[in-house]
Amino acid sequence: MVRTCNYKTYIIMKTQMLRFYVSSTDVVEHTSVYEAIAYAAKRYGLMGCTIYKGIMGYGSSSKLHSDKFWELNTKFPVTVEIVDDKEKLDGFIEEIKQLIESLPKGCLVTRQDVEIVIRKIGKQK
Amino acid sequence: MVRTCNYKTYIIMKTQMLRFYVSSTDVVEHTSVYEAIAYAAKRYGLMGCTIYKGIMGYGSSSKLHSDKFWELNTKFPVTVEIVDDKEKLDGFIEEIKQLIESLPKGCLVTRQDVEIVIRKIGKQK
Amino acid sequence: MVRTCNYKTYIIMKTQMLRFYVSSTDVVEHTSVYEAIAYAAKRYGLMGCTIYKGIMGYGSSSKLHSDKFWELNTKFPVTVEIVDDKEKLDGFIEEIKQLIESLPKGCLVTRQDVEIVIRKIGKQK
Repeated sequence: MVRTCNYKTYIIMKTQMLRFYVSSTDVVEHTSVYEAIAYAAKRYGLMGCTIYKGIMGYGSSSKLHSDKFWELNTKFPVTVEIVDDKEKLDGFIEEIKQLIESLPKGCLVTRQDVEIVIRKIGKQK
Repeated sequence: MVRTCNYKTYIIMKTQMLRFYVSSTDVVEHTSVYEAIAYAAKRYGLMGCTIYKGIMGYGSSSKLHSDKFWELNTKFPVTVEIVDDKEKLDGFIEEIKQLIESLPKGCLVTRQDVEIVIRKIGKQK
Repeated sequence: MVRTCNYKTYIIMKTQMLRFYVSSTDVVEHTSVYEAIAYAAKRYGLMGCTIYKGIMGYGSSSKLHSDKFWELNTKFPVTVEIVDDKEKLDGFIEEIKQLIESLPKGCLVTRQDVEIVIRKIGKQK
């Protein structure tokens, strides 16, 4: 568990990174899927979450778009990246499965080992 | 092989992630390199591909730009991320080598182990 | 060491990827933290660096913003990604610790094993 370390603590710790590959147009209950996943991660108390917008891409159920005007496009790939320790992520995956099942479109979730080398906790807001 | 699983299948499977680090200005035969790689990945039948635009960066043959007006910039780093199993990616790397060789500029391609924890396939379009 | 290879060399080599998760609003000495890290990496002679802007996220000391108008937002998550071999990165982490300590806000730095499968060096500019 990493949750107990203090401000200005440097730790080396085995954790994992979870990545959800979805589309900006995937929606569950009037919310973007990527937002729903991020809020679920926050509620579950996961350490951190970053969401990236891709400019192009394809998955198992989508075509590859080559749109030169992608800045104007509203459909783009979105990757949700979450870091926490393995046990926490195991629980979160169970929690999130229902949301993933309710998706009309496909979704890929990957996991990989990462090591935390510095974790500095700022003042809580 | 992951290609045979059905809609709403949850699998745990060892795969790999391939990442190409190129520049938005790298071109092969009048096409952006990142687009050429994405189309090649699609033709080769790789599972999925996401392309990210970076806001800043450098490689072995490029300077580090610190452009506050990078939204207006046309040269930016681009990362092409592909997930599939090791054997598929081995074949794809062989296939793509000629394209990489024809590049006038440098290019870095990395590979790492990732595990698929959820793969849901949407309806094919 | 990877620094000695020539133009059009294909190598397979164990390296590591370092990722700094910061915010666009984190500043050290009138410079964005992500820029400061990128310049430090360049000075230290690290192989390559790419900086990504996230569209949403949270860390241990920040709230999760759900801003539909995030294109207009000036606070967003930023990820600095650096690839080089383990020994080089060990030294760089030591070098960068003082900068991280001087940050008023939190910061997460992760490391993971990656393998370089192609490295092509362009002509130096």
